[in-house]
Amino acid sequence: MNLPEPPYYAVIFTSSLSEDTQGYSATAERMLELAALQPGFLGVDSVRQGTEGITVSYWESEAAIQQWKQQSEHLLAQQQGREQWYRQYRLQISRVERSYCFEKE
Amino acid sequence: MNLPEPPYYAVIFTSSLSEDTQGYSATAERMLELAALQPGFLGVDSVRQGTEGITVSYWESEAAIQQWKQQSEHLLAQQQGREQWYRQYRLQISRVERSYCFEKE
Repeated sequence: MNLPEPPYYAVIFTSSLSEDTQGYSATAERMLELAALQPGFLGVDSVRQGTEGITVSYWESEAAIQQWKQQSEHLLAQQQGREQWYRQYRLQISRVERSYCFEKE
Repeated sequence: MNLPEPPYYAVIFTSSLSEDTQGYSATAERMLELAALQPGFLGVDSVRQGTEGITVSYWESEAAIQQWKQQSEHLLAQQQGREQWYRQYRLQISRVERSYCFEKE
């Protein structure tokens, strides 16, 4: 994944799944696809280990994050997340100020 | 994990492991323990799924991040990471501006 030079924005989403994960994986995958279609989307990193997950999505601006938050299908997924899938989550909006990459030769 | 009200800082570390992971887990665990002893450390989220990992550590200030970066045992681990464990990584320093928590009742 290529990201631009900072500054840009990162949404850090950490979550713990509940026991009822019916439909979760398909919706999570669909949300990644939909997010990638949003204006201002730069990329995403997502890892899950059992019930614990971290997804970091990258955006050009706070306005782009706000638009994605209000996307209609995403709003439904957020609601189902709170009602069914998540035991808890934390969403943090942050401004990336510096970045360093390493890649083995 | 309790985090204070923003603003505070998040270090987003995304990594892909190489094939040579000898000693990696023990050092990763040790680094989490050491980080927790640093002044200005607020908490950490860390998840690994196969070779892909995301670790987000939270700090009171950029100065606290800088001090942790220069901690002597951590410097050795960084070097070994580049030489042995990591195929690639990206380190992003970000300033958390807003956060929302959800917890099921």
